[in-house]
Amino acid sequence: MAQKNASELLVVGSVAYDSVKTPEGSRRDALGGSAMYFALSSSYFTSVSVVAVVGEDFQQRDVDVFKAHDVDVSGLVRAKGKTFRWSGVYSTEDVNQRETLDTQLNVFADFSPTLTKQQRRTPYVFLANIHPALQLDVLQQMEARPRLVALDTMNFWIEGQRDALTKIVKRVDVLFMDEGEVRQFAREPNLVRAARKIIAMGPRAVVVKRGEHGVMLVQNGSLFVQPAYPLDRVVDPTGAGDTFAGGFMGYLASTGDRSPLGFRRAIMLGSVMGSFTVEAFSMERLHTLKRNDIDTRFRAFSDISRGSPLRKDQSLPWRGSKN
Amino acid sequence: MAQKNASELLVVGSVAYDSVKTPEGSRRDALGGSAMYFALSSSYFTSVSVVAVVGEDFQQRDVDVFKAHDVDVSGLVRAKGKTFRWSGVYSTEDVNQRETLDTQLNVFADFSPTLTKQQRRTPYVFLANIHPALQLDVLQQMEARPRLVALDTMNFWIEGQRDALTKIVKRVDVLFMDEGEVRQFAREPNLVRAARKIIAMGPRAVVVKRGEHGVMLVQNGSLFVQPAYPLDRVVDPTGAGDTFAGGFMGYLASTGDRSPLGFRRAIMLGSVMGSFTVEAFSMERLHTLKRNDIDTRFRAFSDISRGSPLRKDQSLPWRGSKN
Repeated sequence: MAQKNASELLVVGSVAYDSVKTPEGSRRDALGGSAMYFALSSSYFTSVSVVAVVGEDFQQRDVDVFKAHDVDVSGLVRAKGKTFRWSGVYSTEDVNQRETLDTQLNVFADFSPTLTKQQRRTPYVFLANIHPALQLDVLQQMEARPRLVALDTMNFWIEGQRDALTKIVKRVDVLFMDEGEVRQFAREPNLVRAARKIIAMGPRAVVVKRGEHGVMLVQNGSLFVQPAYPLDRVVDPTGAGDTFAGGFMGYLASTGDRSPLGFRRAIMLGSVMGSFTVEAFSMERLHTLKRNDIDTRFRAFSDISRGSPLRKDQSLPWRGSKN
Repeated sequence: MAQKNASELLVVGSVAYDSVKTPEGSRRDALGGSAMYFALSSSYFTSVSVVAVVGEDFQQRDVDVFKAHDVDVSGLVRAKGKTFRWSGVYSTEDVNQRETLDTQLNVFADFSPTLTKQQRRTPYVFLANIHPALQLDVLQQMEARPRLVALDTMNFWIEGQRDALTKIVKRVDVLFMDEGEVRQFAREPNLVRAARKIIAMGPRAVVVKRGEHGVMLVQNGSLFVQPAYPLDRVVDPTGAGDTFAGGFMGYLASTGDRSPLGFRRAIMLGSVMGSFTVEAFSMERLHTLKRNDIDTRFRAFSDISRGSPLRKDQSLPWRGSKN
């Protein structure tokens, strides 16, 4: 598919057709996949190029979704067979709990990402949740060490591919994992200690995803805890994590700001983007955002999560009888 | 027991001997109970008076713990029989999960709180988790409507005493509940909507306790989300919720600040106090805090949870091809 100017941000991951049932309704064969959510989310902030595989059944109107967001699809390969399919159902009591009903890897089973010459020079890289050996292979295809490489993974690889995963984790800058995965990978039940054990392996930041409970950012010598944007309606949580990562990486790639405050703002923006995704099925909301939607929610989120710290000249009340 | 000057804050609840086992160790018959944790926590900020019952076996050295914190124990009644006993075990995989092994109500079974003349005029009142009919009875003993009444409860009363609980909930200002209780009481799975349903019943604020995930404050037309202070060692979570409430109410009673920012600071201070309690068994840490301990952690917590909001003259990056 058509070549474009060099992009700031590269994502390697999946494009899928998802069938989901949630308390708010259902969809069959709706557009999904980690690369899809990530690319759309980050495309609001920077230029994005995607590496993924789809089947012969992949609809042109779905390629057009990428194109509408000016995403470079020169690395979107069409292979013989069907597109990756996933189906799941979310709990009526707690929409954040889900059960996978079916996974058909289809063309994704033989996915072997090959980067174009241009893609090999991309400064920001997101390795979405695929086999850790493939993630390493992508990194080895890069012409020079990218400015920032982030990695997502899942319990399946921690359990079955710990050695391969450890190898790639050591070489990335930012690691995305959910709470349970951090504990499992580090073999340590305390989350802060677990994340610090991973930091000691190499990454400069672990972004602990806690779903509806927000995010913890652990870096060498520093911590940041951020609640999630509180929503009064959750329609479909599918893709929230990759949308979050897209906002996070889109911010960093666009601004180049890798300072502590830059990372914090990236996390806030990622949370804001994720909140849009879960308000609708598939890309239905993420596809249609306006600049003002994002700006307004970012400012609302800042207000909702802003504490009341002491100024330097203020002190806490004290009863005085003790020191 | 000895009468004192009028206090700013009244707590009605339990004093207990707890036996706990956690991944970090165990204690037998250690000092506990909601009124105990609450009183010690709030005593750092304001004058506190307690209404509770203990048995003949209650140790003088444990009465002295109250006294060391200058807590008014004129309402601490000694009754025939044994002190309330609870025992539980916390999970090795996730220290925030616990199982109750045994509950012996003992003298607490016939607890019928009677306020002294002085206590009936206390401006700030915390009704810890006891039978909702007793909570209502306490409120009716007050000479005038207190400036602020807060209530804690539990799933046991939601399930078995919904009518009595509804009656008292309608009459309080601040309701403390954990996430599951809010959903259960409101019969609504979405947390924000559930809390708003409860606000519509009467309270001006619902403080949703999320344990290691922090707190959500829901008021009419406003939201505040606050992560928990991240600890790299959790020794014993027992009493964290009541310690939190003690810091919260202690702050409000001491400052009289019931503004939105006052509530936010109260929540932050409550979280800080709770973090000390879980770092040790029983009152072992809460009993020995210095002004500097609290101040230092409050400022550290402010930093750890401080986001990176946009200044008015700043804007988010935007790729520009869309508006």
